Amino acid sequence: MSTKQLNVGIVGAGRIGKVHAETLAFRIPEARILAIADVNREAAQAVAVRCGIPTVTESSAGVLANSEIEAVLICSSTNTHADLIVQAAQAGKHIFCEKPIAHNLGQIDRALAAVEQAGVKLQIGFNRRFDANFARVRQAVVSGEIGTPRLMHIISRDPAPPPLAYIRVSGGMFMDMTIHDFDMARFLIGDEVEEIYTSGGVMVDPEIGQAGDLDTALIVLRFRNGVIGTIDNCRQAAYGYDQRVEILGSEGKIATENCYPNQAMVSTGKMVRKDLPLNFFMDRYTESFTCELRSFVAAVRENRPTAVTGIDGRIPVVMALAARKSHDEHRPVRLEEVTA
Amino acid sequence: MSTKQLNVGIVGAGRIGKVHAETLAFRIPEARILAIADVNREAAQAVAVRCGIPTVTESSAGVLANSEIEAVLICSSTNTHADLIVQAAQAGKHIFCEKPIAHNLGQIDRALAAVEQAGVKLQIGFNRRFDANFARVRQAVVSGEIGTPRLMHIISRDPAPPPLAYIRVSGGMFMDMTIHDFDMARFLIGDEVEEIYTSGGVMVDPEIGQAGDLDTALIVLRFRNGVIGTIDNCRQAAYGYDQRVEILGSEGKIATENCYPNQAMVSTGKMVRKDLPLNFFMDRYTESFTCELRSFVAAVRENRPTAVTGIDGRIPVVMALAARKSHDEHRPVRLEEVTA
Amino acid sequence: MSTKQLNVGIVGAGRIGKVHAETLAFRIPEARILAIADVNREAAQAVAVRCGIPTVTESSAGVLANSEIEAVLICSSTNTHADLIVQAAQAGKHIFCEKPIAHNLGQIDRALAAVEQAGVKLQIGFNRRFDANFARVRQAVVSGEIGTPRLMHIISRDPAPPPLAYIRVSGGMFMDMTIHDFDMARFLIGDEVEEIYTSGGVMVDPEIGQAGDLDTALIVLRFRNGVIGTIDNCRQAAYGYDQRVEILGSEGKIATENCYPNQAMVSTGKMVRKDLPLNFFMDRYTESFTCELRSFVAAVRENRPTAVTGIDGRIPVVMALAARKSHDEHRPVRLEEVTA
Amino acid sequence: MSTKQLNVGIVGAGRIGKVHAETLAFRIPEARILAIADVNREAAQAVAVRCGIPTVTESSAGVLANSEIEAVLICSSTNTHADLIVQAAQAGKHIFCEKPIAHNLGQIDRALAAVEQAGVKLQIGFNRRFDANFARVRQAVVSGEIGTPRLMHIISRDPAPPPLAYIRVSGGMFMDMTIHDFDMARFLIGDEVEEIYTSGGVMVDPEIGQAGDLDTALIVLRFRNGVIGTIDNCRQAAYGYDQRVEILGSEGKIATENCYPNQAMVSTGKMVRKDLPLNFFMDRYTESFTCELRSFVAAVRENRPTAVTGIDGRIPVVMALAARKSHDEHRPVRLEEVTA
Repeated sequence: MSTKQLNVGIVGAGRIGKVHAETLAFRIPEARILAIADVNREAAQAVAVRCGIPTVTESSAGVLANSEIEAVLICSSTNTHADLIVQAAQAGKHIFCEKPIAHNLGQIDRALAAVEQAGVKLQIGFNRRFDANFARVRQAVVSGEIGTPRLMHIISRDPAPPPLAYIRVSGGMFMDMTIHDFDMARFLIGDEVEEIYTSGGVMVDPEIGQAGDLDTALIVLRFRNGVIGTIDNCRQAAYGYDQRVEILGSEGKIATENCYPNQAMVSTGKMVRKDLPLNFFMDRYTESFTCELRSFVAAVRENRPTAVTGIDGRIPVVMALAARKSHDEHRPVRLEEVTA
Repeated sequence: MSTKQLNVGIVGAGRIGKVHAETLAFRIPEARILAIADVNREAAQAVAVRCGIPTVTESSAGVLANSEIEAVLICSSTNTHADLIVQAAQAGKHIFCEKPIAHNLGQIDRALAAVEQAGVKLQIGFNRRFDANFARVRQAVVSGEIGTPRLMHIISRDPAPPPLAYIRVSGGMFMDMTIHDFDMARFLIGDEVEEIYTSGGVMVDPEIGQAGDLDTALIVLRFRNGVIGTIDNCRQAAYGYDQRVEILGSEGKIATENCYPNQAMVSTGKMVRKDLPLNFFMDRYTESFTCELRSFVAAVRENRPTAVTGIDGRIPVVMALAARKSHDEHRPVRLEEVTA
Repeated sequence: MSTKQLNVGIVGAGRIGKVHAETLAFRIPEARILAIADVNREAAQAVAVRCGIPTVTESSAGVLANSEIEAVLICSSTNTHADLIVQAAQAGKHIFCEKPIAHNLGQIDRALAAVEQAGVKLQIGFNRRFDANFARVRQAVVSGEIGTPRLMHIISRDPAPPPLAYIRVSGGMFMDMTIHDFDMARFLIGDEVEEIYTSGGVMVDPEIGQAGDLDTALIVLRFRNGVIGTIDNCRQAAYGYDQRVEILGSEGKIATENCYPNQAMVSTGKMVRKDLPLNFFMDRYTESFTCELRSFVAAVRENRPTAVTGIDGRIPVVMALAARKSHDEHRPVRLEEVTA
Repeated sequence: MSTKQLNVGIVGAGRIGKVHAETLAFRIPEARILAIADVNREAAQAVAVRCGIPTVTESSAGVLANSEIEAVLICSSTNTHADLIVQAAQAGKHIFCEKPIAHNLGQIDRALAAVEQAGVKLQIGFNRRFDANFARVRQAVVSGEIGTPRLMHIISRDPAPPPLAYIRVSGGMFMDMTIHDFDMARFLIGDEVEEIYTSGGVMVDPEIGQAGDLDTALIVLRFRNGVIGTIDNCRQAAYGYDQRVEILGSEGKIATENCYPNQAMVSTGKMVRKDLPLNFFMDRYTESFTCELRSFVAAVRENRPTAVTGIDGRIPVVMALAARKSHDEHRPVRLEEVTA
């Protein structure tokens, strides 16, 4: 292992870029941020001041051209991910890229080819794999604690839908929201899905339907090893963010509860109550963001494979396309139908 | 309301017949059992002694011919239900019949026609509607406590599969086990399902597959009002009986936990644990068996409609046929396809 | 074991007498009620009709004189218990007596002496020992599951105080309410308390204080084996009846939650909530009333010792006296100080 | 508020000193550590490297003499606290001091007098006040959510006793461990305790007894406002760290569960289980350490009173002395008896 710090550059100073910058600056001493780029220079500047980043640029080129920088975090908008991966790979940088790589398999394949050719490392930002709850569920599968998996359920509901303007460019609910759950399904079961059936609808906001998207869906996954899984998605849960999984195996089940800000239970003459769950992913997945970057930094410094590879970034996009196709054609769709 | 006791006869002294006899004898003072019939006279005799039933016969005819008897409980094997309903209706008896009425819609329709013609009351033994947990969930839907329902999940797993000999005559998992969940789905949402998609498999015992049945399934229900539901069924849960439901609505969710024999939690140096759940339906649904008979007795004595009608008995059979057809044809199936 | 039913008589047709009558009539086929007595003949008559009891009298003498009756249940007011025990013992009847035997040790000792002399069986109505939760805790102690006990906590709170008229004749909170907890403490730990310290107050209703009683108390128990226990009592819990215990042992702890009418949890935009607990002892301890009578009937029919003996009825009274003395004298009091 | 960073020095680079250094360095951008001192220079050096602290000294004098330093964190052993407070105050530094200030009231009073004379701020390290669970309980009391408090319980058990060598200099369990609970009691109820009764013993390790200390205790607190509280302490809980509180008020109760590393529940054929709780204070109270320092830094920068004052540091020591006196003299002890 290298004993010196990993030199990192960040492209994108929006919400997630800011989170990653703070994590690297304050919680991962093994890394050092040398530069941050954002077309909104002020945003980049604010992050730089807060996190002690010496260089601020408007263009990603400024980051990629910096020969001291060994690894880049791509935190810009999705439509830029594939090109930035190609450029970063060609510049010989290791890459951490937010999900999804792209909405289009051709772009993804081009990006992954560039990564492979350059021999750099690539990790995709499926942070939930690093959540203590889901990691514990995965461990139960790996260790055989619950035997051979048979049925799997993922509940994944947002507190409220994003703005319509965002929905229109998001690639649709499956590509934007469910994509995390597609990754989680593969991660938990440790095998590939071969067929998807979607039953969805517009139940939250008719304008989402007018934008051509769904806001509520139940997705059935059929894995190669026979496991049957479901994903329950809704863009709106009145009580807040809801993130749970359950697996039934031949020897038992494992299930995780949602996460709450405290363990207090209040009993009064009217009811027994506790506070609402942690409201959204920034609160719920705080620790997992740290763990995923720590994992990436360690993979680069110790020259080990990353925990979430380029293929792990590609397959959920295939699944999202299959889920949409299933909904449109009202029938189960095999993944190979969209892989081609 | 009549102030005198309701005179009841019971056909069938097997497991469920015995439960109902004890419930009527010891917990429902408003009813009196005058006779019990079973081809196995010894079984009927034993129940009669325990419950103070004055008359024991081998044939159901003996019960139906007794002019003092106002209502009969049909607790014999499924293949006899439809004929017994017809005979009981023609004898002018009110009828409580165990589920399912029959595996065949023609038989069901004949039975329901006889009931209608005779003007007697019919209640089907979907006891789970009377469980305190599920009744509370239904109440949340009716009262608007969680707003308009969007997604519904039923988990319904048996501790272990029944003997193969039973499975062969059971009509299949959907007709034998899921039928309770089909009823529960309709009960909770208060609307009809119009389409079913089944993803199932043989994961517990290959012999079940060789017998032409499934042992594990995930069933997607699409209701007329747009609600999407799932039923998770497995013939074997290593930890015991598992019965839960959850509904997500526009204003919140309601979810029930499984039921346990006590509230004790033990923490040791190895783990934090509680005892296994109540193991099977006799323990889990004890109270609901009492409540359903109390409801039936009250409906007859007070001349009110029963809580679970003949149509409520017919539709889950349609759903079971649709679920099987969906599995066989690997596509979503509309209920009207099998109603015809 | 005798194969014939145990012939029982009941003295007292108030709330608890009615519960026991129904339990014997409808749930314990091994027993038969031959007579019931109450100074309020109408009350006795109503129970007799409901439970099929052939004989109704106003005086307990009518029950005790019935030579067919083998056992009596003493369910009359506390001030009559001791005399009735003496009379029943002298009449050769086995005895089930509600708690407490008396508020006065002299009366108790006279009653126990009569029982011993007559060689009849006596069981005291500490029904909570038969509750599934507390029985599970006791089992953890007996089996060594949590090692050697060190600390024990009992939470025992009523939903609301009884009428002042009742409080004035109740013998005080320690004698009327805590007495169940004193029994529970001995039952759970399986050893005797040697010292008690009470810190109490009047927090619910000043009129209770004016009547010379407390309504809230924290009682510290010191067992001979070194275990330290607490009892938390309050005559009023806004959210309803609250009954929990916890034991810390050398190898772990066991703790029980309070009991609720259902397992449903509702999450809305305002809070996560469940329904209020089972409101009072009739709902919470229903099953335990059946189990205690079943145990008594079996002890008599099988000629085995009863599960809760006369001494088990005497010691909690000693503890109640010590608890009060500790409060009055503001110091720890040894039980031997009041036993003399 | 000052816009510049607060310049901090740290005395003591042991376990807690290291935690605070990392918290300031990586999580509180509003502060900057200029120097760290420890008689063990290597320990200080290691922390300095990790946290980017420019100056390392062996003596606290080096820190106190640094005129740039505005505030010091006293993280050295307890016997040095009082003198260091005096010196720091005389040097005009604001002070954050770990608990307890001293085992001796004379030393504490001298330290507090120096603080008052110098007009500097002092915060005592009762970090648990900043835990989300306990803060929520306090909020319920303040807001009136549970009405007027009546009974309060604190469960506070360590996973295992510290080494005997430590116990011998710790000041005893009440001074070392319970002191946090004494503070918590005052914090939660918002009033002062006037009397303490202790029932304790040596149940974990006889050598602790031979060292003159207890390892298990139940402490009853009587507040001026009439609330009765208990503290349950044990130096060893086989299942790990256990930290819970409960308050019963006139309108309801609030109770907190212990904290666990994940929300997963595993059900197998043997039992239903979850993982052991977070094992000790470093894991359990991680966030609270950050919050307390953030609170201290803000109090200094914004010239506001600290959240935990010198008096808040003194009173729990009085309580510890009273608890010990109560144990030794086997009677309730009023705090004024030891304040004098």
